[in-house]
Amino acid sequence: MSRFLSSRHKDLKPYVPGEQPREGVLIKLNTNESPYPPSPGVLARVAEEAGKLRLYPDPEARGLREKLAARFGVGVENVLVTNGSDEALAFAYMAFFDANTPVAFPDVTYGFYPVFCRVFGVPAEIMPLREDFSVRVEDYIGIGRHVILANPNAPTGLFLPVEEIRRIAESNPDNIVLVDEAYIDFGGESAVPLIRQYENLLVVGTFSKSRSLAGGRIGYIVAPAPLIQDLDAVRNSFNPYNVSRLALAAGEAALEDQAYYDANCREIIRIREETAEKLRSLGFVLTDSKANFLFARHPKRPGGELHKALRERGILVRWFNQPRTADYLRITVGTPAQMDALVEALRSLIEGG
Amino acid sequence: MSRFLSSRHKDLKPYVPGEQPREGVLIKLNTNESPYPPSPGVLARVAEEAGKLRLYPDPEARGLREKLAARFGVGVENVLVTNGSDEALAFAYMAFFDANTPVAFPDVTYGFYPVFCRVFGVPAEIMPLREDFSVRVEDYIGIGRHVILANPNAPTGLFLPVEEIRRIAESNPDNIVLVDEAYIDFGGESAVPLIRQYENLLVVGTFSKSRSLAGGRIGYIVAPAPLIQDLDAVRNSFNPYNVSRLALAAGEAALEDQAYYDANCREIIRIREETAEKLRSLGFVLTDSKANFLFARHPKRPGGELHKALRERGILVRWFNQPRTADYLRITVGTPAQMDALVEALRSLIEGG
Repeated sequence: MSRFLSSRHKDLKPYVPGEQPREGVLIKLNTNESPYPPSPGVLARVAEEAGKLRLYPDPEARGLREKLAARFGVGVENVLVTNGSDEALAFAYMAFFDANTPVAFPDVTYGFYPVFCRVFGVPAEIMPLREDFSVRVEDYIGIGRHVILANPNAPTGLFLPVEEIRRIAESNPDNIVLVDEAYIDFGGESAVPLIRQYENLLVVGTFSKSRSLAGGRIGYIVAPAPLIQDLDAVRNSFNPYNVSRLALAAGEAALEDQAYYDANCREIIRIREETAEKLRSLGFVLTDSKANFLFARHPKRPGGELHKALRERGILVRWFNQPRTADYLRITVGTPAQMDALVEALRSLIEGG
Repeated sequence: MSRFLSSRHKDLKPYVPGEQPREGVLIKLNTNESPYPPSPGVLARVAEEAGKLRLYPDPEARGLREKLAARFGVGVENVLVTNGSDEALAFAYMAFFDANTPVAFPDVTYGFYPVFCRVFGVPAEIMPLREDFSVRVEDYIGIGRHVILANPNAPTGLFLPVEEIRRIAESNPDNIVLVDEAYIDFGGESAVPLIRQYENLLVVGTFSKSRSLAGGRIGYIVAPAPLIQDLDAVRNSFNPYNVSRLALAAGEAALEDQAYYDANCREIIRIREETAEKLRSLGFVLTDSKANFLFARHPKRPGGELHKALRERGILVRWFNQPRTADYLRITVGTPAQMDALVEALRSLIEGG
């Protein structure tokens, strides 16, 4: 911290992303990337678009927004495109939340929400999940606070039925209800159709997981048009060319290859359930994940110990060293071969130790 | 503006980027893009990197930062990479400027500086340039304010000698002096070497102009390590994966093809001087631009009128309808053929009207 850092930031506590190793890791299951490459159409369009890089991108991202709108059955005025979904969340904080409007979210959820609270000076109202990590919906009914819910939640993978989202949005008409659907395509149901009824509802999504584009940085927001206008004003006050030509091209091409990604998602779900079953047979306890990861603990082995032992065997999973999650591993669903290697490594650790 | 927009934003006034036309424009000279494509190495590396898009980029952008550090003769700890240089400026505002620390910049300069002031709630101290648009350096000596100077300045193109930057930085040791060098490669001299001496100096740059990558969104900051640490904390509290794999690959490849870009810059300078001469012969008055654009007025024809008439002929230039700039056109330096078409169009407008 230099002596020039604004005094606003005395409590700054940056997000720590999952490790992106440069060497020594054989099997990377720690940041919920897809095991499948982007579709061939994406590769072709990116290569083609590279020839146009001397020109700025369309700052209105019109082409990609139109395709997203068609996919979701909404208008182009209901869609904003961002440099990954973290930027979408940041713009929502900047537009709607401030020092006088606390935002409520679960104690166990995406670790970036409290980080945004600190950097933007927004009070966080932390709402404990139940013992089984389910959302205590009653806590949010008529709370009179902005609300953020990741759905499915991370790192638990638990999905909250859309009807519950509806109740929360309806009971807090003067507050924003932000639903972060980064993991929606692995068995959840999107809340997007509700934006027609609720003027306070905002849905965030990403191309990083189900569309195999974590490296491309494409996020989006679907919301009622007045909210999108506010978010766009913030975007144009921060970085009007926030999405590159290559990201726009990749995103458009991905939306044209929906069948490819749907098939990948089905396969990831199948592998997830199969792996969950194998882990249960080793004595692991798992949540009912509807995401592209498993959240698992073993009653006899601390999460930190397993995390470290797996790493020594070249297998990287995520471990959150916090009171309620330290027993657990968050394991990205990879290829069948990767999952076999993981299960065998855990088997030898459990049975051998 | 929705009823949910934070009351902080009652004065929000987003930046309006230059038009990115989808049709009807034959010659685009309005947003200071390079007339030359990226180097062949960039195209090859982008196409290759597309195959890895399923994986997140390196959030530390190590490879590109190392290459930038080598180019500037500084350490990797002196470099931060951003999603275009607008994001670099935004991070600087977020880190160092707040409601209690006004920031001083010229009245005629990059229009985004006052936009950032509004969105981040930072008081702007507007410092009039001289009648000839030169910076009144004495105004900034010991001012005790943060300072932002675009150098060369936009839209005037005027370059302030680095010795003057040094005096300003030295006389304001407790304030940040931010030098925005978006246009440095067209005849200016970078202030980067001064970061070794002045702990308050921060230099922003971009790949959008001289490196033909406006569509790729790559900006950077070079500064003393403690400032970079602060900026990195802000970046990791906003969007840790702020630069995509494709942007990192394009940026690295561009730095390996320096000779190609150097040759382009020399050619752009040559065309700039040649075009300036032709415009002078038509009666235009021009600043001594050291950027990849000309800033020109005709004593007998209002800028708005010429701007409109050129547009009707399919030639797009930039016109800033503000008191001190409304007489002027800002004309990006394009290819010789584009400049010939521009000169001929202006000739017919001036001599015909």
